[in-house]
Amino acid sequence: MKLSQIGEFGLIEEFKNILQTKDKNVVIGIGDDTAVIKGYRKNHYLLFTEDALVQNIHFNLKNISWLQIGKKALSVNISDIAAMGGIPKFALISIGLPQKISVSQCKNLYQGIKKTADKYKVSILGGDTVSAKELFISISLLGEVERKNLVTRNKAKEGDILLVSGSLGGTILKKHYSFSPQVDLSRYLVKHFKLSSMIDLSDGLASDAVKIAQKSQVGLILFGDDVPLSSDAKKLAKKTSKAPLCHALFDGEDYELLFTVPPRSVTKLIQQVKEKLKILITPVGKIVNKKEGYQLYSNHKYTKLHPKGFDHFLSNT
Amino acid sequence: MKLSQIGEFGLIEEFKNILQTKDKNVVIGIGDDTAVIKGYRKNHYLLFTEDALVQNIHFNLKNISWLQIGKKALSVNISDIAAMGGIPKFALISIGLPQKISVSQCKNLYQGIKKTADKYKVSILGGDTVSAKELFISISLLGEVERKNLVTRNKAKEGDILLVSGSLGGTILKKHYSFSPQVDLSRYLVKHFKLSSMIDLSDGLASDAVKIAQKSQVGLILFGDDVPLSSDAKKLAKKTSKAPLCHALFDGEDYELLFTVPPRSVTKLIQQVKEKLKILITPVGKIVNKKEGYQLYSNHKYTKLHPKGFDHFLSNT
Repeated sequence: MKLSQIGEFGLIEEFKNILQTKDKNVVIGIGDDTAVIKGYRKNHYLLFTEDALVQNIHFNLKNISWLQIGKKALSVNISDIAAMGGIPKFALISIGLPQKISVSQCKNLYQGIKKTADKYKVSILGGDTVSAKELFISISLLGEVERKNLVTRNKAKEGDILLVSGSLGGTILKKHYSFSPQVDLSRYLVKHFKLSSMIDLSDGLASDAVKIAQKSQVGLILFGDDVPLSSDAKKLAKKTSKAPLCHALFDGEDYELLFTVPPRSVTKLIQQVKEKLKILITPVGKIVNKKEGYQLYSNHKYTKLHPKGFDHFLSNT
Repeated sequence: MKLSQIGEFGLIEEFKNILQTKDKNVVIGIGDDTAVIKGYRKNHYLLFTEDALVQNIHFNLKNISWLQIGKKALSVNISDIAAMGGIPKFALISIGLPQKISVSQCKNLYQGIKKTADKYKVSILGGDTVSAKELFISISLLGEVERKNLVTRNKAKEGDILLVSGSLGGTILKKHYSFSPQVDLSRYLVKHFKLSSMIDLSDGLASDAVKIAQKSQVGLILFGDDVPLSSDAKKLAKKTSKAPLCHALFDGEDYELLFTVPPRSVTKLIQQVKEKLKILITPVGKIVNKKEGYQLYSNHKYTKLHPKGFDHFLSNT
């Protein structure tokens, strides 16, 4: 059987079946933005994540500078720590470098990593540079979070409101290689509000909202008309002849935070975040009973939201 | 300027210059087998390492099974933890998979990782599977060590004896894909003896012994006639028409432990390790004053030991 027959999802299932382990110090293993480990600093959890970027899969050297690749490679990992409510701390960098790249390109890549590391106070502790046919960067990042401030994907409750930071879509035009992971926002939120769940938007609002719902064993209604559309979503929509909402729902790589809170917190949260951090927070959905499934409410109509029905859904909007 | 002009060593220097950071909780950053972090479990250090294996660089799919790749990818990281005197604990696995591989090959890879994880009580906490033209596996591993038991590369002292476990060389015939990292030996040593330095043999005895000497700012004499030669070093020597010692000094991928102790500990250490663990420990050199440099004593002759003079040195023996 070929990988294309079981797909990424099937592969993750195999990975889990074979490799998942039981360890009393592992609070969360496979299945959230980071792993969560206890038994180290008092009243804290260690957060541990690793993400790889591969040339021609995650970026194309024609559209992105070496500096930007370095920034992005570390930023995607920092965004995962932010999604748990945590603070990024220590990173290791494995790089596979094609022989033909120049020393100055390589230094630009390191400079990009350095700029992001400094901005987020991440210490680079080393790594491994090996030769490879195609460029890849795999970064592992340790972070920490106070136990009371940990936010996972799996505790959204019926009645909770789904909120998102920033505006979404059209990231291929710029944002996917120049985003800033929302660590300050995440820290502000976990210190001042009780979030029931959180995830960072890497695969797109539709897909990532459904991940929260699946992990939390609840249903979900997305309010399509309320989704904050980025100017790039609108710009791109003119070229693609799709609705800007399609781009906001499915493009991915927004690296904004998507989270749930009880309805009573919503107004205060939106106001305070606007005042203190100048960040827009928008209600984009509601957690409902599991039996209602995953739905999109837009233009006075309910449509079934397909978590993996990416293209299928696009053609219906 | 091309990478080939500055080489791996030049690249590591650039990496250090640009990326090394100062952080009071970082005991060791770049430059040992693992990074060492304090501020977590009381009286302990966290050990943090990441190593990548790349198809056609570190292994060739014609000579190694998928199960063996999985075992090796985790084992090289466990060996780094052992080199610090530590215990491996938690791992994340990033895999770049070519589209054309089959599900059963992929499952075998996972099974290999699992077998090694179980043997060394390592918990796999997740990771990332992405598509790539060439197979790569990048594993990040967290471990821990009691503060008093940490062993680094940089504290070998003049007069210390250099000891090695097992027998060396000819690893290309078998051992490079079927070795067992020496965690039990490492733990026994750090609990019962005061080691002044330690490293795992990945690049070869000559190169790794010089790394200890450089980091410790001392000189070194290797006793060529005393180096324990593996049967595969002898077997390979017949094919290559080189001396078996050359294979023992330069082949690399032995994943044995190389360490230094004061002379008074040597006899007791060798006897006890033989009795308790049935492992052969052999004195293979002596730490001398820095101004004596790095030398090989063999056949009543001193030769200069070139840490990077791999091929050059081979042709002279």
